[in-house]
Amino acid sequence: MENWDNLITVEQMEEATNSLLETAAKLNADTWQQRVKNQTPHCKFGEEGTCCRICTMGPCRITPKAPRGICGCDVHGIVARNYLRFTAGGAATHSDHGRSICHTLYNAKEGGSYQVKDPEKLKRIAKEWGIETEGKDIYDLAHETAEVALMEYGKPFGFSRWTARAPQHTQDLWNKAGIMPRGIDREVSQSLHMTHMGCSSLPEALVQQSLRAGLCDGWGGSMCGTEFSDVLFGTPKPLDTEANIGVMEKDNVNIVVHGHDPSLSEMIVFYANDPEMIAYAKEQGAKGITISGVCCTANEVAMRHGIPMAGNFLQQENVVLTGACEAIVVDVQCIFPALGPLSKCFHTKFITTSPIARMPDAEYIEFSDETAAEKAKKIVKLAIENFKNRKPELVNIPQLKTKARVGYSVEAIKKELDGVCNSHVDDFGTLKPLADVVKSGVLRGAVAMVGCNNPKVRPDTAHIGLMKKLLENDIILVVTGCSAQAAAKAGLMDPDAAKYCGEGLKRVCKLVGIPPVLHMGSCVDISRMMILASDLAKDWGCNISELPLCGCAPEWMSEKAVSIGNYVVATGIQTFLGVDPYTKGSDVVTNLLQGENGMVQNMVEAHFTVDTNIDSLCDKMINCIEDKRKALGI
Amino acid sequence: MENWDNLITVEQMEEATNSLLETAAKLNADTWQQRVKNQTPHCKFGEEGTCCRICTMGPCRITPKAPRGICGCDVHGIVARNYLRFTAGGAATHSDHGRSICHTLYNAKEGGSYQVKDPEKLKRIAKEWGIETEGKDIYDLAHETAEVALMEYGKPFGFSRWTARAPQHTQDLWNKAGIMPRGIDREVSQSLHMTHMGCSSLPEALVQQSLRAGLCDGWGGSMCGTEFSDVLFGTPKPLDTEANIGVMEKDNVNIVVHGHDPSLSEMIVFYANDPEMIAYAKEQGAKGITISGVCCTANEVAMRHGIPMAGNFLQQENVVLTGACEAIVVDVQCIFPALGPLSKCFHTKFITTSPIARMPDAEYIEFSDETAAEKAKKIVKLAIENFKNRKPELVNIPQLKTKARVGYSVEAIKKELDGVCNSHVDDFGTLKPLADVVKSGVLRGAVAMVGCNNPKVRPDTAHIGLMKKLLENDIILVVTGCSAQAAAKAGLMDPDAAKYCGEGLKRVCKLVGIPPVLHMGSCVDISRMMILASDLAKDWGCNISELPLCGCAPEWMSEKAVSIGNYVVATGIQTFLGVDPYTKGSDVVTNLLQGENGMVQNMVEAHFTVDTNIDSLCDKMINCIEDKRKALGI
Repeated sequence: MENWDNLITVEQMEEATNSLLETAAKLNADTWQQRVKNQTPHCKFGEEGTCCRICTMGPCRITPKAPRGICGCDVHGIVARNYLRFTAGGAATHSDHGRSICHTLYNAKEGGSYQVKDPEKLKRIAKEWGIETEGKDIYDLAHETAEVALMEYGKPFGFSRWTARAPQHTQDLWNKAGIMPRGIDREVSQSLHMTHMGCSSLPEALVQQSLRAGLCDGWGGSMCGTEFSDVLFGTPKPLDTEANIGVMEKDNVNIVVHGHDPSLSEMIVFYANDPEMIAYAKEQGAKGITISGVCCTANEVAMRHGIPMAGNFLQQENVVLTGACEAIVVDVQCIFPALGPLSKCFHTKFITTSPIARMPDAEYIEFSDETAAEKAKKIVKLAIENFKNRKPELVNIPQLKTKARVGYSVEAIKKELDGVCNSHVDDFGTLKPLADVVKSGVLRGAVAMVGCNNPKVRPDTAHIGLMKKLLENDIILVVTGCSAQAAAKAGLMDPDAAKYCGEGLKRVCKLVGIPPVLHMGSCVDISRMMILASDLAKDWGCNISELPLCGCAPEWMSEKAVSIGNYVVATGIQTFLGVDPYTKGSDVVTNLLQGENGMVQNMVEAHFTVDTNIDSLCDKMINCIEDKRKALGI
Repeated sequence: MENWDNLITVEQMEEATNSLLETAAKLNADTWQQRVKNQTPHCKFGEEGTCCRICTMGPCRITPKAPRGICGCDVHGIVARNYLRFTAGGAATHSDHGRSICHTLYNAKEGGSYQVKDPEKLKRIAKEWGIETEGKDIYDLAHETAEVALMEYGKPFGFSRWTARAPQHTQDLWNKAGIMPRGIDREVSQSLHMTHMGCSSLPEALVQQSLRAGLCDGWGGSMCGTEFSDVLFGTPKPLDTEANIGVMEKDNVNIVVHGHDPSLSEMIVFYANDPEMIAYAKEQGAKGITISGVCCTANEVAMRHGIPMAGNFLQQENVVLTGACEAIVVDVQCIFPALGPLSKCFHTKFITTSPIARMPDAEYIEFSDETAAEKAKKIVKLAIENFKNRKPELVNIPQLKTKARVGYSVEAIKKELDGVCNSHVDDFGTLKPLADVVKSGVLRGAVAMVGCNNPKVRPDTAHIGLMKKLLENDIILVVTGCSAQAAAKAGLMDPDAAKYCGEGLKRVCKLVGIPPVLHMGSCVDISRMMILASDLAKDWGCNISELPLCGCAPEWMSEKAVSIGNYVVATGIQTFLGVDPYTKGSDVVTNLLQGENGMVQNMVEAHFTVDTNIDSLCDKMINCIEDKRKALGI
């Protein structure tokens, strides 16, 4: 087997970061590496979920001497309430992003800043929802569909429309378990209500609602986000791009987009490519304009335009530390408030754009569907005009970058698989060829790897380490979010990386012409993975929980990740976490979520596994896949 | 002036509680008094709002050595995020209760368990909302109005319909400040989104959204709860009842209803009065059936049926400790999980009924609109059959109770005022007579006193102490929630209590025939106070913020109370708190909320005052009222 070390290693990435931290030290600039030291050790009550701040009689902390809070809630109720609130925070966040996309679709118009770029997908969704499409102007259809989608958030009766995409068996499980999601916002509000002082303290009820709140995200708000982003900005197709800090270009105006909502980044990308703007950049002494992305925004624009990815979550300060970032333009979620003070140490403009994410020490340029063009142009101009303010002595762009092929929407995956079909005997547009190679054992199975970075794990080591081992074991990876960027930075999205994989996977990659790690998008795009799993189960003729497939978030940190975990598990996919979700303090809650015979397993045929030892987490995933194969008799 | 000590004192109440705690000690039963000792001292980070658990990079705690969380958020962002989340928890909780009432209205039918008891009020609301009422069957109208109300939770466009009831000036302020509430659930979800890791850390934006989330409660969900409860169960009118633990009757089957949603308690009350059930109780050896209430459920059934109030929040364990409680039947909110284990020390059945509030050690009998009659009957029967299981040696009902006149909805207050109008010159159905006595100085002003008990304040002392002093100063009180029960227990709702008041107030009470403390209902009924203030401002011809009126929650503990505080302040009413809302850790946030020239004051013409010294809190309220009088030139 060839040696992975021919690719970029985590050590090389750390070396690059260290050279940037030297600049920080010189400027006495604060970085997360320092703040982690200041904040360590963490409060044990918080980490174990055994502190309650839900009313002002407390805060209460559970100890052997104080086994109940003042209201009488025991440790299991407290841990479970905190868990549900954590989930609700994530579900609300993803879904509110989805809502914003629905509003953008509602405001789309012919010739406007926002247009329908994938009318076929729009028609497909409209038909799915029983909306008449025949003879209708595409924008009328867009507005009508957007309105129906917006009603998914607040409808007083009925269940999420997207759930009809799941296999019947899965829907039956959800109905039986009482977790079929209703109006998206209602599940969020009810989660807060259930966890209010003097409401639920029965862990079973709280964990049940956590699954439901998760489902309203993955099979509700996030799916709205993904599907209507595709309608508006195009459904991703394979594209070549690059990743890591070296994508920033010394002689160009560097604009970094960071956050989540493509409505902002799409417009910035558009104007950064505007010849007028490029000419203006040259006028100001630059050679051109380079846009690069951080976090999920990077995924969105990489998937649709091949915009390079400068880094993932824990590298967001690095882009400023290069001294070559004219503007970091952000919308919502996962944005370090630290970027405000940090950018003040450089010439960098830290531009916030969303009323949802206001931060101190930022320049606020509010973005809206109506003013998108004007504001995007203004931002690009501001960045260009800031080029001259660079302090050359601070400029340091570590020359580290890798090639990556991205853009594997479900539609794109099916298209790639069509390429290996025999037109005489096979149906096109299915996942049957994938099912076949898994059945045959050429591929052993698949892991959906997702989620953030977290300083509790040496950044990217878990993502990359797990991927390499899984690839060696002929397990294909589908990835999103910061996990995707970790893969890209490590070169695992280069089709050439196939040569390091197990023989079976190597063969499949060569045959289909894909990298061994498939970039499926941003964190909301984990909804794509749900559709992939559903369609695979249907094409295979089995239940989702029987597929040799698992989910993994080895370095997660955000509430969104817990919401995701809940819906991935609830969809029947065994989910492996490398960071504990603040539930250690209750053996009851731990067993409900993680027990092989626990409540969650019995409800949805899957459960969580938490293991902070990454090696053993990997072994458990491989075993899970092999056990599922055995059960299927393959 | 006559001496208040002729009424029941807090000391007498404490004596009664102490006799019950002796039983607890004998049985080794856990009580809140003991748990407070176990949980003291509280975590300072939690109490000051300086601990962040919003992602799993932490938890982070702000100290001089660690001035920022790992993400870089400073103490002001952390405190403000916690404050907004606290508000959102309360807004969601109240509003979800309101949603449940809307669903009940939607399911109401002729001859069904739930009927329209106040068709005139329904028609009035329907007209207000532009729903055609002419020639429509009242149940068709109910269903149509309920559907429109349910859409208030999730409508994708526009603002809360109820806000049109506010004076134009108030609406203008809300629009200008960007806090006009949209769909109720959306404000809740957006609050979670804004406080997600990497979203807002600018305290101004977070406090602004706190006001908006509060408004979606008071001028949204809570108002739905109040108004449609009136439609379903009748709009309260003055009624005589009794309060305190002595309302339980030794020889009767005692059923205690506790929680918030009248849909449960109304049905329990109905079946407890069923001759068949009374006969059954007698068969089982009791003399009859006594229903009494705790917390807001007590307020709901007292206001509409004169059901006596056994106690408020911190007396909920007392009803079980009497040894004479056959069943404590609960729905949602403010229910001690402690009631489960505590009831196991007695024969008491602890019956939970709502999927929103599941608790360990309870008997769960799920209540729904469809099965309400059947389940209510079952519960009453269970209680009756439990009478024989009493342990006579444990029975101790302290003989403490007082008379109270309750039921002062806005409609009822206007009706009482009509009684002093001169039919030749005055309009009926207005608050002008009230405005006139305030203008003339016979009354100096009014305080709306609301909220919970909290062990951080000696129970009821702040409520009762403040009320007495305000009454002596000719300031009339309108009260709700546990504050109302404190007043009732202290005898301040007995019309006879007028004799202890200042001369002006005494005269008004005698003339109008009211007690000096007007019971306006449960916590969601603080929406009644908003309408009262709005109508008073309109009848007076001034802005709400100019009225000699303030709000006060001296012993509050729940998230709902903070949501309430936000909407009361946002409505232009200066609000005084006796317990700190976990914001002490940030001088910036404290100033935004409490500054005389702070952001909140500048947005909505009112702000918070927090003072844990109750005497000085009282002086500040009196000064506030006198200052407003001066400004009005009266």
